[in-house]
Amino acid sequence: MTTTMHDGLSLEQVRELAAQLRVDSIRSSTAAGSGHPTSSLSAADLLAVLMSRHLRYDWDDPDTPGNDHLIFSKGHASPLLYSVFRAAGVVSEQELLEGYRRFGQRLEGHPTPVLPWVDVATGSLGQGLPDGVGIALAGAKLEKAPYRVWVLAGDSELAEGSMWEALATASHYGLTNLVTVVDVNRLGQRGETALGWDMDAYAARVEAFGAEAVVVDGHDVEAIDAALARADEDLERPLVILARTVKGKGIPGVEDEEDWHGKPMPEERAEEAIDALGGVRSLQVRGPRPPEVERRSASRGQVELPTFDVGEEIATRKAYGPALAALADVDPRVVALDGEVSNSTGVADFVQAHPERFFEMFIAEQQMVAAATGLAARGYIAYASSFAAFLSRAADFVRMAPVSRADLRLVGSHAGVEIGADGPSQMGLEDLAMMAATQGSTVLYPSDATSTAALVAAMADLHGVSYLRTTRGGYPVLYGPEEEFPVGGSKTLRRSSHDAVTLIGAGVTLHEALGAADALAEEGVQTRVIDAYSVKPIDAEGIRAAVAETGGRAVVAEDHHPEGGLGAAVLAALAAEPLADLHLEHLAVDGVPGSGTTAELLDWAGIDAAHIARAARAVLEG
Amino acid sequence: MTTTMHDGLSLEQVRELAAQLRVDSIRSSTAAGSGHPTSSLSAADLLAVLMSRHLRYDWDDPDTPGNDHLIFSKGHASPLLYSVFRAAGVVSEQELLEGYRRFGQRLEGHPTPVLPWVDVATGSLGQGLPDGVGIALAGAKLEKAPYRVWVLAGDSELAEGSMWEALATASHYGLTNLVTVVDVNRLGQRGETALGWDMDAYAARVEAFGAEAVVVDGHDVEAIDAALARADEDLERPLVILARTVKGKGIPGVEDEEDWHGKPMPEERAEEAIDALGGVRSLQVRGPRPPEVERRSASRGQVELPTFDVGEEIATRKAYGPALAALADVDPRVVALDGEVSNSTGVADFVQAHPERFFEMFIAEQQMVAAATGLAARGYIAYASSFAAFLSRAADFVRMAPVSRADLRLVGSHAGVEIGADGPSQMGLEDLAMMAATQGSTVLYPSDATSTAALVAAMADLHGVSYLRTTRGGYPVLYGPEEEFPVGGSKTLRRSSHDAVTLIGAGVTLHEALGAADALAEEGVQTRVIDAYSVKPIDAEGIRAAVAETGGRAVVAEDHHPEGGLGAAVLAALAAEPLADLHLEHLAVDGVPGSGTTAELLDWAGIDAAHIARAARAVLEG
Repeated sequence: MTTTMHDGLSLEQVRELAAQLRVDSIRSSTAAGSGHPTSSLSAADLLAVLMSRHLRYDWDDPDTPGNDHLIFSKGHASPLLYSVFRAAGVVSEQELLEGYRRFGQRLEGHPTPVLPWVDVATGSLGQGLPDGVGIALAGAKLEKAPYRVWVLAGDSELAEGSMWEALATASHYGLTNLVTVVDVNRLGQRGETALGWDMDAYAARVEAFGAEAVVVDGHDVEAIDAALARADEDLERPLVILARTVKGKGIPGVEDEEDWHGKPMPEERAEEAIDALGGVRSLQVRGPRPPEVERRSASRGQVELPTFDVGEEIATRKAYGPALAALADVDPRVVALDGEVSNSTGVADFVQAHPERFFEMFIAEQQMVAAATGLAARGYIAYASSFAAFLSRAADFVRMAPVSRADLRLVGSHAGVEIGADGPSQMGLEDLAMMAATQGSTVLYPSDATSTAALVAAMADLHGVSYLRTTRGGYPVLYGPEEEFPVGGSKTLRRSSHDAVTLIGAGVTLHEALGAADALAEEGVQTRVIDAYSVKPIDAEGIRAAVAETGGRAVVAEDHHPEGGLGAAVLAALAAEPLADLHLEHLAVDGVPGSGTTAELLDWAGIDAAHIARAARAVLEG
Repeated sequence: MTTTMHDGLSLEQVRELAAQLRVDSIRSSTAAGSGHPTSSLSAADLLAVLMSRHLRYDWDDPDTPGNDHLIFSKGHASPLLYSVFRAAGVVSEQELLEGYRRFGQRLEGHPTPVLPWVDVATGSLGQGLPDGVGIALAGAKLEKAPYRVWVLAGDSELAEGSMWEALATASHYGLTNLVTVVDVNRLGQRGETALGWDMDAYAARVEAFGAEAVVVDGHDVEAIDAALARADEDLERPLVILARTVKGKGIPGVEDEEDWHGKPMPEERAEEAIDALGGVRSLQVRGPRPPEVERRSASRGQVELPTFDVGEEIATRKAYGPALAALADVDPRVVALDGEVSNSTGVADFVQAHPERFFEMFIAEQQMVAAATGLAARGYIAYASSFAAFLSRAADFVRMAPVSRADLRLVGSHAGVEIGADGPSQMGLEDLAMMAATQGSTVLYPSDATSTAALVAAMADLHGVSYLRTTRGGYPVLYGPEEEFPVGGSKTLRRSSHDAVTLIGAGVTLHEALGAADALAEEGVQTRVIDAYSVKPIDAEGIRAAVAETGGRAVVAEDHHPEGGLGAAVLAALAAEPLADLHLEHLAVDGVPGSGTTAELLDWAGIDAAHIARAARAVLEG
């Protein structure tokens, strides 16, 4: 039987569909030999009602702008999601049975956007809802499109603070286009959740965070239908459907039992269960169609970046906002987010120029990066900023961005001991390592305002996660507006025909390297000085050539811990074609800093001009 | 005037004390030229009442076990905290005026435990309360001591999900010894918070998360006193005092004004303000004394680690729990936490053996690491585990651990593409980089059950953050129980007098390297095979010697992204004394993996035996 209904199935048909989703969840996971059938079965009735009667979706055109969005925040329920895709007719029975969790196939263990109906990757619990907030922001505030964002969440993941950041943000922005359906099946991986089936407690939390809570029996299709229909009414708050469900629902002996998390049914048991559920079905179901929404097209005009006078002292963070504002002037897709420190990160100038394209995320960095991920899924060019140190709060969200195939632009200010008196809690000293280890990332660390502005603009066209590190203090502008700063390049600021050693820096240490070069020049030692503004990819060829030309002698200094930053990138670059006579000194921040002036702390860390000069002399003495 | 009262000041005297705290907050920050006086002034009345009438603390013996604990979760209010310390007579006026935020001094920009009255470092907002939950857990569940944990939180930081993880955890564990005082001064750094002075909204959230909310005028000392006295009554839930306050309270023209965040008063303005507050005072105030509590002393007996038969196939993660249980058998300080995956991380065996020393943190990794930090502050030897991938959720808490001088033991399971079908969201591929870049950390990555057990035990005596990475699948035990695994060491598993190339692996890639060695041996090529179980510190000398002995030829393979992991550590080790003829191939995981079998994914990533052998041949061909 193939049933295609745009006005919705009857509830009796919905029950049949739910049985099919259950059977297919069991079949696919048993065939794969892994997966989470019981976590799928608890939500089968919810999805049967949602997909057939409420989700407004053109399955033949997943990119059509009026489509609703469906996010499985509980990504481990992928057997259910893929069974929905089969019921929609976009995934075949064969793919479901032979492709799920198999190498080279698109039905991965947890959903990712290699599937055209998936917006963001899930599987790290607590991320799908915050990501959905980003999509809902795009719909409500930017696209002004009537689509809804439906998020299926698990009860276990409500333990993640990020879920509450998401609800707080959704209510702050009045995102009535966001509907969260929580599958409260009581059981986590290793036993009961903290709240079990205490639906009142969940409802109180949801309401307190500014959303409308509707509690429903998650296996009563009529009640589910009524609850989801609430989304069609005039909402004043984001809607959260709290569905009391039974894990493993539909399989006698497995229902509500512990120790069945993440375990497929053995084949015989699966057959029994499928029989008990009425056997295999092949319903094909289409729900309501999306409203017509005009497709946007966007392009970028010629950017006129701000210019700075060479020698003027200005902090790189202060160049960020004006550069982003200039980019946004000519590209309507550019948006920005910040974690309640816009006057520190420098994005305040953008806020002034384009307030309608700025989203204040308050001090919720996880939600900030998730919102950027959601905005990226809608085609926006999103930049998110905070102190470099505090971007680490969102490390798991940054990690997931490449799995989501999301292009994110992150800007971390106040990097390193350079910040001075505020002390170590505010000093980003691990950020380069975290960002560089992110799959497919780009890491940029400019030393002056001109290069900052150029790199901010360059980030707009980069794929994957790109990260720009900025500095608190003001330093002289080094470059005129005509200079170019290709990603993967470097700049040579001092060069002579008889340079004895190469000094490599970025950010504040480049200025210190220039100071060291001056001091060494007074001693009659000429140095090559390289601005390694592109940490990943590093200018391997340029740096290798410079170091080779200076007899294998080099000093690299960075305002970062010794691991995973500029020094590591330089070492990796040099290792590709080892120099026989390499003598490299690596200066970095080791130990826990305290407060102090910038000069005191750069000295303490051993990365100031005096230490760089001393290291250069040591290298020269061999 | 020096007033020392153990039964509490009169409320009139408390008002004087509050004025002193305000004046000193202004003086210290103006003298330093930086700091957050306005964020201090809003909470001055709260602290005056708390320190004089409720905080049971022996200032002369900060380590006495009956002492209450005072945590400034809003660490930027350090001028207020240090003014409290002056009022308690443990910091001099001179230190306050000349030491605050100065290089080499202990009154840092944000409080750290270099001060004996500070338990944990704060300044990354949203961490002090979760840390406090750890201390409260220690008091209520382990020490069974009557002390209270008082946390001063800001309203802005309630945007951090970690604060709600903390309240959920506190209520789950019934931590009535935890009192959170929220300074609701309405203003964040760049403007109003999301909720402003909506005290009802805060109260609803707090109550919904299972705590008792008391709303109070934060400048009415009588009302504050009554609210704090609630802690002396029979509580059923953690207590949260929501204090409505005014930022900058006490300075006309600054009170409740934006743009005064994080700015010291200019000198002249400071003088006016101090005059208006009645001038400088020198009250010395002692509040109630702590109850007598017996000092614990703990030592460790002889550990009998579990043993494994060489050749037996067992996952390293399965060795973790039994080893930890054995350690706990002989050391009462050993405790464990897990993020609701104890049956996956292997800690379940510990839970079985020592249930009273295990804390289920549900899926709240930030709170898990924070609780471990708090437990460490109380002298416990805390191990916290989750999937390696999900420890990234707590990156900012790991970053802060060295600032807190906390010894943390973290165990991350399911590392790398080795996990197979679950897909990239569950694969820790960045964890080595994150952990290695942590100040003073140790990173361990054993390949078999024997070395895992030994390293779990070794971690108990390490300072700083130590991290153990475990593997999902079962692999042969390589070592007998007599072997030793010093941190910073390595093991040589294959060695002959004519080895042509060194193969370096850890975890699954060590087993693949052994397979490659076998294949190469069949071709007549002898190899040196090194188990680099200690990634940081790496066995630089041993690895350099091995590579030198094999003519500079080496292959290093890791189930991790190319940046910041084993390959980077090996490169850094080799760079210290460069080999003239180095030819090193680095195999790592690049690109976004999908699902598949372990074998398929190791092959896809190019880190299996076949690829290692191929790389070795390429190195040999030069």
